[in-house]
Amino acid sequence: MKFNAPIPVTEIAEYIGAELEGNDQQMATGINEIHKVTPGDISFVDFEKYYDKCLRSAATIIIINKKVDCPPGKTLLVLPDPFSAYVKIVKRFRPFEPATKPISDTAVIGKDTIIQPNVFIGNHVTIGENCLIHPNVTIYDHTVIGNNVIIHAGTVIGADAFYFKKRADREVMYDKMESCGRVIIEDDVEIGASCTIDKGVSGDTIIGRGTKFDNMIHIGHGTIIGRNCLFAAQVGVGGKAHIEDNVILWGQVGVSKDLVIGKGAIVLAQSGVPGSLEGGKTYFGTPVDDARVKMKEVAWLKRIPEIWEKLKNK
Amino acid sequence: MKFNAPIPVTEIAEYIGAELEGNDQQMATGINEIHKVTPGDISFVDFEKYYDKCLRSAATIIIINKKVDCPPGKTLLVLPDPFSAYVKIVKRFRPFEPATKPISDTAVIGKDTIIQPNVFIGNHVTIGENCLIHPNVTIYDHTVIGNNVIIHAGTVIGADAFYFKKRADREVMYDKMESCGRVIIEDDVEIGASCTIDKGVSGDTIIGRGTKFDNMIHIGHGTIIGRNCLFAAQVGVGGKAHIEDNVILWGQVGVSKDLVIGKGAIVLAQSGVPGSLEGGKTYFGTPVDDARVKMKEVAWLKRIPEIWEKLKNK
Amino acid sequence: MKFNAPIPVTEIAEYIGAELEGNDQQMATGINEIHKVTPGDISFVDFEKYYDKCLRSAATIIIINKKVDCPPGKTLLVLPDPFSAYVKIVKRFRPFEPATKPISDTAVIGKDTIIQPNVFIGNHVTIGENCLIHPNVTIYDHTVIGNNVIIHAGTVIGADAFYFKKRADREVMYDKMESCGRVIIEDDVEIGASCTIDKGVSGDTIIGRGTKFDNMIHIGHGTIIGRNCLFAAQVGVGGKAHIEDNVILWGQVGVSKDLVIGKGAIVLAQSGVPGSLEGGKTYFGTPVDDARVKMKEVAWLKRIPEIWEKLKNK
Repeated sequence: MKFNAPIPVTEIAEYIGAELEGNDQQMATGINEIHKVTPGDISFVDFEKYYDKCLRSAATIIIINKKVDCPPGKTLLVLPDPFSAYVKIVKRFRPFEPATKPISDTAVIGKDTIIQPNVFIGNHVTIGENCLIHPNVTIYDHTVIGNNVIIHAGTVIGADAFYFKKRADREVMYDKMESCGRVIIEDDVEIGASCTIDKGVSGDTIIGRGTKFDNMIHIGHGTIIGRNCLFAAQVGVGGKAHIEDNVILWGQVGVSKDLVIGKGAIVLAQSGVPGSLEGGKTYFGTPVDDARVKMKEVAWLKRIPEIWEKLKNK
Repeated sequence: MKFNAPIPVTEIAEYIGAELEGNDQQMATGINEIHKVTPGDISFVDFEKYYDKCLRSAATIIIINKKVDCPPGKTLLVLPDPFSAYVKIVKRFRPFEPATKPISDTAVIGKDTIIQPNVFIGNHVTIGENCLIHPNVTIYDHTVIGNNVIIHAGTVIGADAFYFKKRADREVMYDKMESCGRVIIEDDVEIGASCTIDKGVSGDTIIGRGTKFDNMIHIGHGTIIGRNCLFAAQVGVGGKAHIEDNVILWGQVGVSKDLVIGKGAIVLAQSGVPGSLEGGKTYFGTPVDDARVKMKEVAWLKRIPEIWEKLKNK
Repeated sequence: MKFNAPIPVTEIAEYIGAELEGNDQQMATGINEIHKVTPGDISFVDFEKYYDKCLRSAATIIIINKKVDCPPGKTLLVLPDPFSAYVKIVKRFRPFEPATKPISDTAVIGKDTIIQPNVFIGNHVTIGENCLIHPNVTIYDHTVIGNNVIIHAGTVIGADAFYFKKRADREVMYDKMESCGRVIIEDDVEIGASCTIDKGVSGDTIIGRGTKFDNMIHIGHGTIIGRNCLFAAQVGVGGKAHIEDNVILWGQVGVSKDLVIGKGAIVLAQSGVPGSLEGGKTYFGTPVDDARVKMKEVAWLKRIPEIWEKLKNK
């Protein structure tokens, strides 16, 4: 997420109560998770094993829980709880704006787009031309929707990421990460009824051009779906997955987070995908395998009693 | 789908730009997919391997992409892209009518039926007597609901079929079929919260009398569910399935499209049904099998290490 | 469910047309299913095998379908169809109250709580302070929500239990149990988008303090979820389950009814839980097993062809 205007790093340091190391003339232009950072961004790190990754990243300003050598040209903001400091900055610069009406005056809606009754459209939403938004759809703040998009009834676009930090020593153990990313739905996408597509934590969840979703599909935060994909009903995809173009997921498939499904892969119904899959192949099973291999396993499983008999007679 | 009034076939031919072969005095009374056609209907075929099936079907008027011998008494409408022509006719004679209010003036609602707040009821919907429609339900145009029906909050009745034609040579690869079927919910049905029941492509999706659905159940386009069925939460059923009376599907069961589940069959939780099942039996597994057979397989699977040991010692 | 005021048992007997045995001076203070009864309650029993359990329970007034010896101090209400009598009492003393507006005047909403547009809040609902209820959420009558609770768009709290009595001899075979329980959501809970949490049949469905749900999670009637649990998207939990503190269920896990999952258990994605699980362990598979055992089974399954070869060569 980029700020509306650059913010002096000294202002940030004061706001979160951090000790500043390194360049104190820096301007912060945005805030992002480590895998999304670009120059000018604030990011945070609170595990020593990730220090290196964060310090070498494109992030210009790093909130960190230990005083370390500051890389040249960067700024460290040192305090005991970087996670909470990060959340505090997000809440200040991308505050939740309660709605005053079902369709915000700040929303921009294109020509020939039909909005059916009982739809909610939040602040700073953009919807292109020639779209059809069916009843009881909810579109959270900052969502971007292209042209010729159809969204069926009851679908929710842009709810918060399911992302919590565990605090084993607290009574309320899970500490909420504040999401400031968006959902971007490209042109010619159709989303079925009662789907949920979460916003990214700091970056964007993207549904690529021409992709079609059936009903009750869940897409986690920051996931990127390519063009011309086809997902059947009740598919669930975890956060920060990357699903390339022309992928077909059949009904009730579950896809884990932080993985890649290659271009043109087909995953058969009810399969569970725990890790990355090469494109161009067909998969089946939980955990998923090459579909032909899995089908043979199903057949072999039925032959165990025969094996048992054979063994007895040896 | 039947038209409001018969249409001269010459008018249809001119509208879609087709060459007319055979009887040019025909009146078209409806338009349907090949497996739903009745006399007077327009249908379409664009694969040579289905030509015969379509030409011998009850369809009176056939949109086809090659000049062939016209069966006696029928009419052929020849043009390069029958799918698009079919969609064009549906859009003209069953156009989408944007809502002007949450409950359409053309909806007919029976005596003693309670409609809770934030419900959407589309055009030409019929709801019987003594029903209870909970908040935030969406009922698309042309839906028919019987008497004593309960629909829980957030449910979506009559969204479009998930049906696309693949156009491998286009940038936007999936071409939407326009649905003109309906959903019919018979008397004494209860539908849980956040279910989605899609309309048929040209025919009807039917939920039979006395059937009860738990929450988050998805029913695909044109599927026919019998009487007194019981579906537990998160069940998904594909398009054009036929589920006979007294079938019980437990939680998270997935049922593929174009199949029959026989009367009184029981499918245990999380099972996947890829093809037709005989009635009166209990099933389990993905892919599904007789439940006792499957349970034995689960037990045998645990004995492979024992088999391995035995084999080593032979 | 407790009545607003005690009711003379003779009034109940007359209302349902039952023959009264035993103490006719009793005051009924509530009505509950057998596993939820406390002194003063009415309960019902219609299977002989449960007579003993019911007669020995804390229930003070028992609706029963056979004249038996009345335990000292109790009251029996004898009639042919106790289920229907029970439902009749629930309907009279906890009648459905149709809404007259989207947010009931009888709802109590705490300080600094934000209710976004298109939300439905039923009669006698209580919501604490500092909550955020996103658009298109439905909160049924009598729901109780604590402080600092976030509920995402499209979620449905308090729909009816999926509970029917089979009447094999009737045309409409499933006879609806009338739910009079509630949903209670404790402080600091976050519920994702498009979840459904059903009310209890007579007791309460409880979501414990600090528990966090992702999207599209279904919780059955009367289920009790502990504190600081984490459920990923598309999880389904049956009725009257008891899930203890700190349990983690990954995506698309299905949990059956009437069971206990012990404190700190972790169930991996897409697993199916048919019975109780001990706490502190990690589980996988359908049906679920210790995750390490199950993973070994998956590996052994791949070695059957090798076993087959070995056997041939012996």
